[in-house]
Amino acid sequence: MLQFAKIQKRFESVRSNKAFELFVVGVILFSAIVVGVKTYDLPEGMLTLLSGLDAFITLVFLLELSIRFMGEENKRHFFKSAWNIFDTIIVVASLIPVDESEMAFVGRLLRIFRVLRMVSIIPELRILLNSLLKALPQLGYVMLLMFIIFYIYAAVGSTLFAHINPDLWGDIAISLLTLFRVMTFEDWTDVMYETMDVYGLSWTYYLSFIFLTAFAFLNMVIGIVVSVIEKENAIEDAAAHPEPSMSELQKEIQSLKVLIVEMNHTQNQSKQSNKGNE
Amino acid sequence: MLQFAKIQKRFESVRSNKAFELFVVGVILFSAIVVGVKTYDLPEGMLTLLSGLDAFITLVFLLELSIRFMGEENKRHFFKSAWNIFDTIIVVASLIPVDESEMAFVGRLLRIFRVLRMVSIIPELRILLNSLLKALPQLGYVMLLMFIIFYIYAAVGSTLFAHINPDLWGDIAISLLTLFRVMTFEDWTDVMYETMDVYGLSWTYYLSFIFLTAFAFLNMVIGIVVSVIEKENAIEDAAAHPEPSMSELQKEIQSLKVLIVEMNHTQNQSKQSNKGNE
Amino acid sequence: MLQFAKIQKRFESVRSNKAFELFVVGVILFSAIVVGVKTYDLPEGMLTLLSGLDAFITLVFLLELSIRFMGEENKRHFFKSAWNIFDTIIVVASLIPVDESEMAFVGRLLRIFRVLRMVSIIPELRILLNSLLKALPQLGYVMLLMFIIFYIYAAVGSTLFAHINPDLWGDIAISLLTLFRVMTFEDWTDVMYETMDVYGLSWTYYLSFIFLTAFAFLNMVIGIVVSVIEKENAIEDAAAHPEPSMSELQKEIQSLKVLIVEMNHTQNQSKQSNKGNE
Amino acid sequence: MLQFAKIQKRFESVRSNKAFELFVVGVILFSAIVVGVKTYDLPEGMLTLLSGLDAFITLVFLLELSIRFMGEENKRHFFKSAWNIFDTIIVVASLIPVDESEMAFVGRLLRIFRVLRMVSIIPELRILLNSLLKALPQLGYVMLLMFIIFYIYAAVGSTLFAHINPDLWGDIAISLLTLFRVMTFEDWTDVMYETMDVYGLSWTYYLSFIFLTAFAFLNMVIGIVVSVIEKENAIEDAAAHPEPSMSELQKEIQSLKVLIVEMNHTQNQSKQSNKGNE
Repeated sequence: MLQFAKIQKRFESVRSNKAFELFVVGVILFSAIVVGVKTYDLPEGMLTLLSGLDAFITLVFLLELSIRFMGEENKRHFFKSAWNIFDTIIVVASLIPVDESEMAFVGRLLRIFRVLRMVSIIPELRILLNSLLKALPQLGYVMLLMFIIFYIYAAVGSTLFAHINPDLWGDIAISLLTLFRVMTFEDWTDVMYETMDVYGLSWTYYLSFIFLTAFAFLNMVIGIVVSVIEKENAIEDAAAHPEPSMSELQKEIQSLKVLIVEMNHTQNQSKQSNKGNE
Repeated sequence: MLQFAKIQKRFESVRSNKAFELFVVGVILFSAIVVGVKTYDLPEGMLTLLSGLDAFITLVFLLELSIRFMGEENKRHFFKSAWNIFDTIIVVASLIPVDESEMAFVGRLLRIFRVLRMVSIIPELRILLNSLLKALPQLGYVMLLMFIIFYIYAAVGSTLFAHINPDLWGDIAISLLTLFRVMTFEDWTDVMYETMDVYGLSWTYYLSFIFLTAFAFLNMVIGIVVSVIEKENAIEDAAAHPEPSMSELQKEIQSLKVLIVEMNHTQNQSKQSNKGNE
Repeated sequence: MLQFAKIQKRFESVRSNKAFELFVVGVILFSAIVVGVKTYDLPEGMLTLLSGLDAFITLVFLLELSIRFMGEENKRHFFKSAWNIFDTIIVVASLIPVDESEMAFVGRLLRIFRVLRMVSIIPELRILLNSLLKALPQLGYVMLLMFIIFYIYAAVGSTLFAHINPDLWGDIAISLLTLFRVMTFEDWTDVMYETMDVYGLSWTYYLSFIFLTAFAFLNMVIGIVVSVIEKENAIEDAAAHPEPSMSELQKEIQSLKVLIVEMNHTQNQSKQSNKGNE
Repeated sequence: MLQFAKIQKRFESVRSNKAFELFVVGVILFSAIVVGVKTYDLPEGMLTLLSGLDAFITLVFLLELSIRFMGEENKRHFFKSAWNIFDTIIVVASLIPVDESEMAFVGRLLRIFRVLRMVSIIPELRILLNSLLKALPQLGYVMLLMFIIFYIYAAVGSTLFAHINPDLWGDIAISLLTLFRVMTFEDWTDVMYETMDVYGLSWTYYLSFIFLTAFAFLNMVIGIVVSVIEKENAIEDAAAHPEPSMSELQKEIQSLKVLIVEMNHTQNQSKQSNKGNE
């Protein structure tokens, strides 16, 4: 058992070794290049080479994951990190042999997602992604409001325009896609001119939609800016903490006053006793 | 009369019941789905089912509105809230039987607007919308300035380019729409190249317009950012209110000074009386 | 002479009369509508009516300008305001009779610019425009840098691509326009794909250009945001002026100390004299 | 040797002469115009004139560089500035005679880059560019994250859609370009509708991509805003430095207290000694 702990310690030291980390980043970069190269038309020999390299990368990833797992003192903690679970799924799924055309396709996608391991291995990217994810719930209600606007406009759009162009306004799902297109300003006038031939006032539909979504979008951006500034201020305040607060100063001045008043009192007494003395 | 108050209290408790609220949100969501499903081509049986569901939703909304109205202690207060008026209009209008094709269309639109009740029922969305509406007047003058720019360019555009392409520059209304299209950069070069064939320098018209509107738009965005930051600061200041102000501190220090000066004075007097004593 | 001053005072009171101001705003609005109506195809009778209205508007503007000029105590001050000069030019130019087709066109443009008087008459718009103009010089150097980038890319573009499509890259002026189009993302891929058929690597030209201009543009936006925040802070500081500064507080505390030290000193002396007494 | 130092001083004074600087800016502006004029179709005589002007500009630049080099007290310092190196390369490269068609083209490009000397000669532009470059590393990790997103989507895109349209999705490089096009919203629906004919759900691919990149882009903008505000605050704090800090005030108040306590103590003693006296 003690021997096992020794091995674990050794794995832990390997894991936190800088060279080991760089080597893994290198292999992930290499796997990204392999993924890229595969998208080109390649001669037969190259393909065999690439599948060999693929097997090698899978092996390295498996080893790396094992080392990291072995190096973890408490095995249960390992699966508490979402990144470790993600890594494990990617690596284990790569091990499943894929021969049929259907599965081969899934296998290729899995190998592409190995590039995402770059995020799980580089701490700065992990922090950045976490901060991005943290910003999401803030946007929750704005997104919901925006979706309600989209949904109502899509319902109105498919009710009014379905007979004009079913490809764009056939049902509510297609209408939602068309409205998203309008929001990105992508050939939105073509969509509008088509319906304006039938309903001359339909420009009000498009313009009001653009104003509402642009306004909501603007609000979203501003919302993030403000929340970020707020955080900034909070950090600043924390940094300014060692400074005494105004109220602390006030208390000290007040205690001074008490002292002086007391002193004044005793002095008066002493003066009076002096007077009594005379 | 007392019995009536009792019933009102009971309705009030139903109204503020969490389960009741969730049930209403559920029905609104369900009505949204019904609205969505209706945009697809449906078999006859499905349509009968949907109109039945519609009647059911209308009934639930009517009941919910009644409960909320009954639960209101002061009946006049109920119609002071714009949201309550909106809800009432939506629900009452749904009750009107619509058979003719013309009215059927209006009825469908009304049923779509029932999705908006989501905003009136979820407090967070109501707050968000209110804050959006509050931001509107701030933008008032920028919007007016932007409209003046649009109007002048549209007048110039329809004066100069009407004979080139009446579909885009025929009159001032069409020109305004064309300029809005140019502002969204939607195929604006097509519009420009067409007029440049006749007036070689007409690119100045488009470029100056883009610069002016982009600049005004930028200013609008910045304006909102600043007003939001201002509000932030105001809230911060309010939170910092318990802290004494600098001038309060100053007053306390000054009162201290007065005390000491007085003390000094009495001491000097006592010293002199002592001297006189000798 | 005294009589003249009396008249001037009366004009001054007319000028600052709220009803008078509203009347002028109304006439400007009306002139804007006349400008708009003129862009439509109108029957002969309507045209005569409109030219009559035009003459009436010109008359009102002339009267209003005269009143404002008369109401000015110091006549020289009147032409110190750029807005007054603008108003005078617009009004005087409207007086010149235009009959020939060439001049008629200029006359129509002049009547359109009368709408701009809305800005000169509404103080809030005037303030807004002034603040926009004040922001311009701040952007000066960023604009210059952006123009240098544009110029260099346009020179390279017309050197490389002139033989591919002279309509887009014929000379440096056309190239600048094409690059502005690329910056607005308007069908920029069509422009790129065309040159990529000849020079396979020309996508580097477009992508680097987009990155540079987007980056410069971003910097411009941020620049304005910062300058606006700076101004905000300056105003806040000014508002906070009545509050005593930290250093003022410090001085008061120090003067307190001097007082106490002195007091201590006299007390010690009095004690010693007391002791000497014994 | 002393004579040499004298000459150097004279060059130094020439170099910092305002008129000399303006003259150089004028020549650069002139060279920019020559570059622009060359992009037009010109008669033979004009071309000879232009090549003469070119030689003249090269000569002026050579002289100016020599004066600046001579004016530098420590010759090694001259090449420590990246701008001086840039200037030297541009000027020296202009001296190489270019006759063959291949080299003539490179020569033309070099002459275009002479416009960039505007940045190296105007200090404000140099400062602006430096500040832009300083902002780049801040964006480093966001750019890396964005590239990873692009790369994964490009790999998936070329795996799924290569057989639909090889011109857009042929290999990973073309797919990256297509995705950049989608990010700029340039005819992105055309790209989407094409793949949706084969894979009905491929809109998820495009929408998720747009959301991810828009979100990352937004984050980048906000990131710069925040870092700029931070800098602002740092500058403000530095400006506020002369003001005493809260803790300094606190110390002074505390020293006051000590004084008063001491005083109180001596007074009590004196009183007691007085009492003892009696």
